[in-house]
Amino acid sequence: MKFELNEAMEVLERTPQALEQLIGGLSAEWLRCNEGEGTWNVTEVIEHLIEGEKTNWIPRLKFILQEGEGKPFPPFDRFAHLREQADTTMEQKLQEFKAIRRHNVAQLKELVDPALHLELTGLHPTFGAVKVRELISTWVVHDLTHTAQIVRVMAERYRTDVGPWIQFLGILNK
Amino acid sequence: MKFELNEAMEVLERTPQALEQLIGGLSAEWLRCNEGEGTWNVTEVIEHLIEGEKTNWIPRLKFILQEGEGKPFPPFDRFAHLREQADTTMEQKLQEFKAIRRHNVAQLKELVDPALHLELTGLHPTFGAVKVRELISTWVVHDLTHTAQIVRVMAERYRTDVGPWIQFLGILNK
Repeated sequence: MKFELNEAMEVLERTPQALEQLIGGLSAEWLRCNEGEGTWNVTEVIEHLIEGEKTNWIPRLKFILQEGEGKPFPPFDRFAHLREQADTTMEQKLQEFKAIRRHNVAQLKELVDPALHLELTGLHPTFGAVKVRELISTWVVHDLTHTAQIVRVMAERYRTDVGPWIQFLGILNK
Repeated sequence: MKFELNEAMEVLERTPQALEQLIGGLSAEWLRCNEGEGTWNVTEVIEHLIEGEKTNWIPRLKFILQEGEGKPFPPFDRFAHLREQADTTMEQKLQEFKAIRRHNVAQLKELVDPALHLELTGLHPTFGAVKVRELISTWVVHDLTHTAQIVRVMAERYRTDVGPWIQFLGILNK
């Protein structure tokens, strides 16, 4: 186990700013492209990250701290953001993500004492017992997996343009 | 083909700032970890990106514009940065990357007129004829592939910590 709460929070604090720098102000073409039928574009990934802040990480954390393994927490709908298309610009979405994440990291600090709470368990609707540490680690890796997805989706646009160099570009060789 | 020079430059301009936000000020543990024997840590990826700015992209672009297919351009040593370990902090490396990238994007703007130069060809030492467009696209995708690598390396640290959620985390399922 490598988990340390302060190190995990370093990543959680950085993700919105990193994504703001990476995609803020990009041409619409970069935000619209995807990896084909049924895959998400950059805009949808940001919407999914915002949805997670609203309904997944902190709500589940509170649920575990309150209920323990008494009752399973509600399932997280990973596709909710696709139904409720918010009519906001990318800049507004990035600001929303930044604000709600800032609020949630502050809540995390308030709710979790690493000396006391990390090994507490709750009941996941399909996995069974899960720990607070696992939930927070997953929050961090979820940020990283969707950051990787964003750059992969963008890279995909140039699959043909790179010509023979494709063989050196791991991101296009999956 | 999707390539537009101005869109490509949008990504090239953003990478150093995005990486600065993503990893600036992170604990040493995040910068030191890797994906196992023979793989790069975050610090080594940044050193490799700086090396590319110095010896790969703009030098090759100039070489193509000057020599055409007259003679092959020198091979790029993708491991040079591992021999010449710069004794600088991560913050210094990030500043160096930002400065040299800013300079190189300015050069790119000066050297390439998209109406004239994108389909010009040079001679790659192993691929044979390559186009200016392919070189610049590769520069962009190279940024994206190494950004993906950085977040993948970081995610790897928490492989065990995430517990049963690993099955939903694409970045850990390779």
